[in-house]
Amino acid sequence: MATHLLDLQQLSIGEINDLLDLAQHYRDGGPLPDCSGAIVANLFFENSTRTQYSFQTAEERLNMRVISFVPETSSLQKNESFYDTVKTFDSFGVNALVIRHSENEYYNDLVGHVRAAILNGGDGTGSHPTQSLLDLLTIRQEFGGFEGLKAVIAGDIAHSRVAHTNYDIMTRLGMEVVMSGPKEYMEDRYPYEPFDEAVATSDVVMMLRVQRERHPDGTPFDPARYHREYGLSARRVASMKKGAIIMHPAPVNRGVEVADEVVECRRSRIFKQMENGAFVRMAALVRALES
Amino acid sequence: MATHLLDLQQLSIGEINDLLDLAQHYRDGGPLPDCSGAIVANLFFENSTRTQYSFQTAEERLNMRVISFVPETSSLQKNESFYDTVKTFDSFGVNALVIRHSENEYYNDLVGHVRAAILNGGDGTGSHPTQSLLDLLTIRQEFGGFEGLKAVIAGDIAHSRVAHTNYDIMTRLGMEVVMSGPKEYMEDRYPYEPFDEAVATSDVVMMLRVQRERHPDGTPFDPARYHREYGLSARRVASMKKGAIIMHPAPVNRGVEVADEVVECRRSRIFKQMENGAFVRMAALVRALES
Amino acid sequence: MATHLLDLQQLSIGEINDLLDLAQHYRDGGPLPDCSGAIVANLFFENSTRTQYSFQTAEERLNMRVISFVPETSSLQKNESFYDTVKTFDSFGVNALVIRHSENEYYNDLVGHVRAAILNGGDGTGSHPTQSLLDLLTIRQEFGGFEGLKAVIAGDIAHSRVAHTNYDIMTRLGMEVVMSGPKEYMEDRYPYEPFDEAVATSDVVMMLRVQRERHPDGTPFDPARYHREYGLSARRVASMKKGAIIMHPAPVNRGVEVADEVVECRRSRIFKQMENGAFVRMAALVRALES
Repeated sequence: MATHLLDLQQLSIGEINDLLDLAQHYRDGGPLPDCSGAIVANLFFENSTRTQYSFQTAEERLNMRVISFVPETSSLQKNESFYDTVKTFDSFGVNALVIRHSENEYYNDLVGHVRAAILNGGDGTGSHPTQSLLDLLTIRQEFGGFEGLKAVIAGDIAHSRVAHTNYDIMTRLGMEVVMSGPKEYMEDRYPYEPFDEAVATSDVVMMLRVQRERHPDGTPFDPARYHREYGLSARRVASMKKGAIIMHPAPVNRGVEVADEVVECRRSRIFKQMENGAFVRMAALVRALES
Repeated sequence: MATHLLDLQQLSIGEINDLLDLAQHYRDGGPLPDCSGAIVANLFFENSTRTQYSFQTAEERLNMRVISFVPETSSLQKNESFYDTVKTFDSFGVNALVIRHSENEYYNDLVGHVRAAILNGGDGTGSHPTQSLLDLLTIRQEFGGFEGLKAVIAGDIAHSRVAHTNYDIMTRLGMEVVMSGPKEYMEDRYPYEPFDEAVATSDVVMMLRVQRERHPDGTPFDPARYHREYGLSARRVASMKKGAIIMHPAPVNRGVEVADEVVECRRSRIFKQMENGAFVRMAALVRALES
Repeated sequence: MATHLLDLQQLSIGEINDLLDLAQHYRDGGPLPDCSGAIVANLFFENSTRTQYSFQTAEERLNMRVISFVPETSSLQKNESFYDTVKTFDSFGVNALVIRHSENEYYNDLVGHVRAAILNGGDGTGSHPTQSLLDLLTIRQEFGGFEGLKAVIAGDIAHSRVAHTNYDIMTRLGMEVVMSGPKEYMEDRYPYEPFDEAVATSDVVMMLRVQRERHPDGTPFDPARYHREYGLSARRVASMKKGAIIMHPAPVNRGVEVADEVVECRRSRIFKQMENGAFVRMAALVRALES
């Protein structure tokens, strides 16, 4: 039976730590399993750079055979359904399907109907398990663990699958997590803290992009004002705790949620997150194929 | 000299059976030749999911080096001709060119001007040899042979390269083939049978998609009426002969030519056709490279 | 430290000859190094057929792992910057980045900020080093060297990175190079010769495409008139010196800068240039990885 990776709620803390250990093992240059007999299809129905191509990098490092779907040149243009498109790749006999789709929990229609393992590369505003895993790996490399750390996730919480997935798993791991940003982007279920206070007291300051493509058309947005009120400026960075780090799932809107000069500053782990992404996805793929 | 696969009329019955045998051999887990020295270019100038990606899957299984062309990001945007684009890939020294193009018999301009073997992935409304081969493999798996079987091909015959190619090869193989569907989609050269009668008396009910992208703009089309008159509903499926099967080259317009609940019903071989597609294309590629 | 290939001015004549020797060695069937541990990302932000896919062919022949970026389905659509996109791939740990971008000297922002070797696949109207290398290899195969040969580069000089790169390197190699074409496409720094005179007296007649996509919108253009005045017609070909050859970086506008029947005539090396392209890029990749 296929071992899907749909969200992190399905995994125990032990399983999550196993995945992080395996990713760290690959990062440290540990030996790789031979996956040359496995074929994986990457089905990205939503735009992506990091997730799509770091999965590809992971697959290539594991010596897998890679099929990457380009929706624009497919039978989606002839109105083929999402379900039938995925079933088509499953019929080819691929071992794993890496899928991103705009609909929350798109995978509910697929589980039980496909033989391949599904790896969720992001579902709508729902969850993004491999992003959370790479965030966790980055935090663990920095602090050695999670217990007792404080994180603020700041920005467009409502539209962020990263925020949702990270809040759940970080609190399960014993971290304190608060949300911050404009009130209209917040959700009632999460604790809120004013931005300047949260930045100054957190070990992890995780900034989010304002996902304007998920907002209703015509919603007004003033980038300069946003930056003034909720942007991570050099001045705010200066207020951060000793040892605290800056994270962002990217793409970054430089000058909006993060000041240009902050993106690659000493505290930033933004590009290190991307480095970790390929290793975490190697671990996720190996777990999926072992089943 | 390159062994092209342009249409099935060029092949003897013996050669077709050899290809089906080889495909079945791969399907049964038979040993694969080492094609790791061969480079293949996939040039799809028309949208495709199944043909394009099952060729890719076949190439990956054979351990070939794969180059997949994305027309949208190419010099076609600078008005480069089809001929020059194909010649470019041929100049790179690839061993095989898998081509789909909207023009019938596009390959006439290429044969004699390229060194690589051309595998036709569909030419306009002309022919689609690997689709027919996978249809034949599916039928042979079910019935053990072809002689004496009856098939109905139903729907948009005029615009279907699948209908044209299948009619020719199936009759050559000793099958009785009738066409059905709206009169305006029929062609005079083929025998016609009313839809309900054909469904009830055929061993193979092959449904086709209405290819509205090939119809003149503004042609009226009523999907509900089409489904009522020419759609394969559960009621019509109930009238089918014992052992009879449902096929469709896909993409399926669910609820139009085939009822939603029929697509994966007991009689349907639609996804099995897709499984067979990758194996048939492996056989076609190996034949092309052996030359 | 990474060995970038940004333009040919950075290379000595000795290094250029080494690259050409290595390319010829691969062309002659010489043994290949094992590059199976290397990952390369192809980042084409401008349309391309030849450069993009001959780099891919070269990478596949060298057994590298290949990641090909499709800008249309990436986070560029979410306004991610060019710099951040390239840094993302660099963070994945790729060994080489093949980049084409519309901005001249785009690479100045990247050098020192990426760990991978950058191979320039064309920067705006700036330079196109691997195109020049394949042009040089083609000339050397024909004439055995460069000293004393005369070349005319004819057409849209102002918008051509090929013209700029070739003028510089060919004169360094001891060739006489003149430009020809409509006065409004010329640049003062280059020697000019009337078209008919240049065609009749050159060893190498290198035609360029009019790059209308780089001209201001609404610039009038009469293809028939252009062909009459500056097109390489069969009549003009007949005036060429004994042993002289025709070259073009392609895509060719057949019937505009080159007559249809001239493209594959006896004197034309246009498709041979493409053959050489893959070998030259193999040499460039191997040099980049050796560093």
